[in-house]
Amino acid sequence: MVDELPIMTLKAIGIVRNGIKQPPSAGYEWGEIISEIVIDSSLTEALDGLEEFSHIIVLYWMHRAASREVSLKIHPMGRKELPLTGLFATRTPNRPNRIGKTTVRLLQRQGNILKVKGLDAIDGAPVIDIKPYIPHSDSVPDAKVPKWISNR
Amino acid sequence: MVDELPIMTLKAIGIVRNGIKQPPSAGYEWGEIISEIVIDSSLTEALDGLEEFSHIIVLYWMHRAASREVSLKIHPMGRKELPLTGLFATRTPNRPNRIGKTTVRLLQRQGNILKVKGLDAIDGAPVIDIKPYIPHSDSVPDAKVPKWISNR
Repeated sequence: MVDELPIMTLKAIGIVRNGIKQPPSAGYEWGEIISEIVIDSSLTEALDGLEEFSHIIVLYWMHRAASREVSLKIHPMGRKELPLTGLFATRTPNRPNRIGKTTVRLLQRQGNILKVKGLDAIDGAPVIDIKPYIPHSDSVPDAKVPKWISNR
Repeated sequence: MVDELPIMTLKAIGIVRNGIKQPPSAGYEWGEIISEIVIDSSLTEALDGLEEFSHIIVLYWMHRAASREVSLKIHPMGRKELPLTGLFATRTPNRPNRIGKTTVRLLQRQGNILKVKGLDAIDGAPVIDIKPYIPHSDSVPDAKVPKWISNR
């Protein structure tokens, strides 16, 4: 049904710096982690105005995700007691295109450096895009999730 | 400060179908638009369990975004009365990596086809990733935005 599936090329716009050199185990608590996102200095001006947002969406490349083949179905967070689930119904890093999407608090912007809280990326992760977090399009008040998420 | 900015390659996992052949003008109301996302049939099983979520996050390639050079600062939504703003503080499609991120309602999943409401992508847009929308990580109750957004 899908005749042409195109290939696309990304160029990183920056890099994550936080001193976390190894991917922690699933379930690691990133909430309090402070990271710096160093944006390519040729793009500094493109950050102007971002400091007026309290939160931003970071798209980054999960470059150290397990390199084994992608499994179509997995136990979420590696927890065997959770049901075998299609990978697209989970947030596993081990996906066909290894893009992570995380909403973080923007603590500070200084030139081409963004200081953020709660980014679940390790040191050296390539950053692909920065978007402002806009509640009326990014949040859903009445969203429904399966029981295995409510219970965790 | 950034010594190495890697290049990455994406392969589409599917394609948007909605009959909208041309990019509408900025400010077009996509909220009621119904689209089908046709996922590559080799990945069908990876969608299992997605139907238990009311909303999903679609990452797609804005393949028809204006092909002119990326402007570092723009008037959001092309509205001259809004302040000149760094592109990363806006959701313009005209960005270094043309990835769109939209949260949509999942109406139905049938095999490898997802029927969704509110996707702001045109017909033929390559889909890069599907993630479940999980309120406790994807939504921020107290987010602050600049005045030009509150006022629109």
